[in-house]
Amino acid sequence: MEEFISKIRTIEWIKEVGGGFSRMVNQLLIPYEFEYVDIKSSNDMFDAIKTMIVRGAPAIGIAGAHGVALAALELADVQDFEEFKVKLYEKCEYINSSRPTAVNLAWAIEKQKEVIAGAATIQETIAELIENAIKLELEDIEINKKIGDYGAEIVPQGATILTHCNAGALATVGYGTALGVVRSAWAKDRTIQVFADETRPRGQGARITTFELTKDGIPTTLLTDGMCSHFMSKGMIDVVVVGADRIAANGDTANKIGTCTLAVCAKYFNVPFYIAAPLSTIDMSIASGKEIPIELRDREEVTHVNGKIICAPEVNVINPSFDVTPSELIAGIITERGIFKPNELHKAFV
Amino acid sequence: MEEFISKIRTIEWIKEVGGGFSRMVNQLLIPYEFEYVDIKSSNDMFDAIKTMIVRGAPAIGIAGAHGVALAALELADVQDFEEFKVKLYEKCEYINSSRPTAVNLAWAIEKQKEVIAGAATIQETIAELIENAIKLELEDIEINKKIGDYGAEIVPQGATILTHCNAGALATVGYGTALGVVRSAWAKDRTIQVFADETRPRGQGARITTFELTKDGIPTTLLTDGMCSHFMSKGMIDVVVVGADRIAANGDTANKIGTCTLAVCAKYFNVPFYIAAPLSTIDMSIASGKEIPIELRDREEVTHVNGKIICAPEVNVINPSFDVTPSELIAGIITERGIFKPNELHKAFV
Repeated sequence: MEEFISKIRTIEWIKEVGGGFSRMVNQLLIPYEFEYVDIKSSNDMFDAIKTMIVRGAPAIGIAGAHGVALAALELADVQDFEEFKVKLYEKCEYINSSRPTAVNLAWAIEKQKEVIAGAATIQETIAELIENAIKLELEDIEINKKIGDYGAEIVPQGATILTHCNAGALATVGYGTALGVVRSAWAKDRTIQVFADETRPRGQGARITTFELTKDGIPTTLLTDGMCSHFMSKGMIDVVVVGADRIAANGDTANKIGTCTLAVCAKYFNVPFYIAAPLSTIDMSIASGKEIPIELRDREEVTHVNGKIICAPEVNVINPSFDVTPSELIAGIITERGIFKPNELHKAFV
Repeated sequence: MEEFISKIRTIEWIKEVGGGFSRMVNQLLIPYEFEYVDIKSSNDMFDAIKTMIVRGAPAIGIAGAHGVALAALELADVQDFEEFKVKLYEKCEYINSSRPTAVNLAWAIEKQKEVIAGAATIQETIAELIENAIKLELEDIEINKKIGDYGAEIVPQGATILTHCNAGALATVGYGTALGVVRSAWAKDRTIQVFADETRPRGQGARITTFELTKDGIPTTLLTDGMCSHFMSKGMIDVVVVGADRIAANGDTANKIGTCTLAVCAKYFNVPFYIAAPLSTIDMSIASGKEIPIELRDREEVTHVNGKIICAPEVNVINPSFDVTPSELIAGIITERGIFKPNELHKAFV
């Protein structure tokens, strides 16, 4: 199974005569089963994003790009090009509304809207949306490898890297962002190891990160989310690297709920805390994290595990899916153009 | 169901001709079932403590006292008083070895050893151990009510109180320590509410605290353990109150894993963080938290929920059941003799 995950594509456009469809790993089944699901309509793509068959900010971006291509295919019979475009833009907004926090979704749909704006006919639009989606896929892997290689430089020899949620190959097209850093570090140094937060309520760390890393042979220890300060206080964590769903211009970073808690503890125990994310995650249109919309999800994510209730049924629940880590807690943001201090993000775009 | 839990005894000696036995709420079944289990031998008491049929530092203390009484009953047929005492002291050590972190267990067994040392005959020893166990039970409730009343003074009007694990009626004989503070505050002010950490891996917050509080009609919201900083950053938490398993002379406090993470976040977001615990939880024999033994428990507590695996089976696990919160993070320690600064604990014993 060595490097099983490194060799798969989490999401991929499958070309067929007449267009094709989106194939993705069904992340709801991991770690119990490893199955692909084929998404053949824009409505099914909306549901796949919303229900988290596909998750992870970069993977959601590609899913959005695929969704626009599927929507265009559905509109192929429209006679009038202007009508086609109006309906397609509506579909873009619909797909974009599936999840609010990760800006990569809006970013990728914006890239597809540029394609739509530049095309001359319906058939040309469809063909170019598909080509652009595939281009974004391939770029994602290349970007992640660059993030990994820059990030590996901040991983000390023999380090224990703590991560949260899953910012891995399974959160992207391949290789991963935070786990891309792990992969690049592991390629140079077989004495590193990963501590993976369980990441309640959805358990992406327990379910997906431990699956992804153990399948690739990287030593991994599972923690519950409250344990970070214990291990940090014992000097057992050398560096924290996590992904991101949206980074504001000042470096404030939205990521999976629990990330801010981890960052606060890292600061207290003097453990460097890094974000690993592509530039497409940075939203220079908002000044600070206060402007990032935080998705609230269903109470059952908190009250149930594997379909069984774990608490008194009468209890209240508030289930924010993300939190915002203040930039002052972040040692650096690792991107495909290098590592930037949170207050120097503008330098990544020159 | 209003104040259902306030009216029950979590652990109670049931007198019978010839001695009696220990009756306790089976906490492994909450919130699914509410059942008592009768413990009639010292070996069964060891197992009940170890497997957490009874849990919570003060309740474990009483369980230990009951266990010594049961051991004495088992040794009633020994002819020689000195031999009886030697064997009984051995049983005391055995029961004390069931869980290492909560000092209340050692404290209560020490109280029973004082009874043994002061008695003149086997029958007198047995009778006095039972009477002393019952006395400790009744004292526990009185102590908790005092803790609650002192603690209620630090709860602002209409406050949202965040707590971790279960330091409630179900962690004590009755009323609770941290949740004793909640009960006393609730008695004065029906506008307070509780945010309860899930408290992975064993889920005592989700399973037991939400059960205990909703049964008593106190508004309760369930959080996953990583969410604390999100709600603190939004100004939604007014005060944190948790229990303790062992407090060192300098105020460093061992409590359920995740407590230190909560305390670090409370400090960062300027939310006052209090410990509520009886004086029997304070171990003046150790200078700092570094000397507190931290129990490591089975990997299955982390890898499984309700018997089903939640991660890749190959993953490593380290499962410390407690962490140590540095005294500098603690605003005050609420005891039956008042609220003390961590560096002024010695004043509680004058």
